[in-house]
Amino acid sequence: MKTSKIPILKLYNNLLISIQWELDDKTAMQFQEDLLKKIHETGATGVVIDLTSVDVIDSFIAKILGDCVNMSKLMGATVVLTGIQPAVAITLIELGIELEDIHTALDLEKGLELLKELED
Amino acid sequence: MKTSKIPILKLYNNLLISIQWELDDKTAMQFQEDLLKKIHETGATGVVIDLTSVDVIDSFIAKILGDCVNMSKLMGATVVLTGIQPAVAITLIELGIELEDIHTALDLEKGLELLKELED
Repeated sequence: MKTSKIPILKLYNNLLISIQWELDDKTAMQFQEDLLKKIHETGATGVVIDLTSVDVIDSFIAKILGDCVNMSKLMGATVVLTGIQPAVAITLIELGIELEDIHTALDLEKGLELLKELED
Repeated sequence: MKTSKIPILKLYNNLLISIQWELDDKTAMQFQEDLLKKIHETGATGVVIDLTSVDVIDSFIAKILGDCVNMSKLMGATVVLTGIQPAVAITLIELGIELEDIHTALDLEKGLELLKELED
């Protein structure tokens, strides 16, 4: 079976990703690899991951996302998570996943604006 | 089998789509439907479809893309195709598919700039 890939868009210095379906474990790991590769290739300084369409999240996916943020930071790119839904926020907190250091914003536009502010 | 969906990102007045794998017929038709729905929902006035990662295209997919452009126009949104690769350009012309009325640009950034120009 072919793993479905999540497209990563490059827009100026930023990478945009919109996750519009439930992530399975394989896709999530593939995404992590693709994202880091893309940061390396493009020299992007910012990443916006939009989760607007994600209704539920489990601990594995949450860990992968957290790892993405930290790994990207190591590579010099700031990640903003946007559009976290109420149910996802509840799950993250209940799972005890700390998002203290993670930048978040309401939607893709606000995420890009936040990245711009952080750069200045 | 689940049909893979192509994520459509909304950024201000525009929709951004990056097609990063070969489209099969089902996915292409699903994409057409999703795109039109999304234009309707968001009231987007511009659409950029980035084909940078598409190496080959067949006549069915080419037709779907052409239809997307014309249907979007009917709904009030301008479509720009970006990143058409040499092999894809050759195929389109050899298939006799006319792209005369279709706006094209080199990449996503240039596509968005073109949309901005067209609006002014």
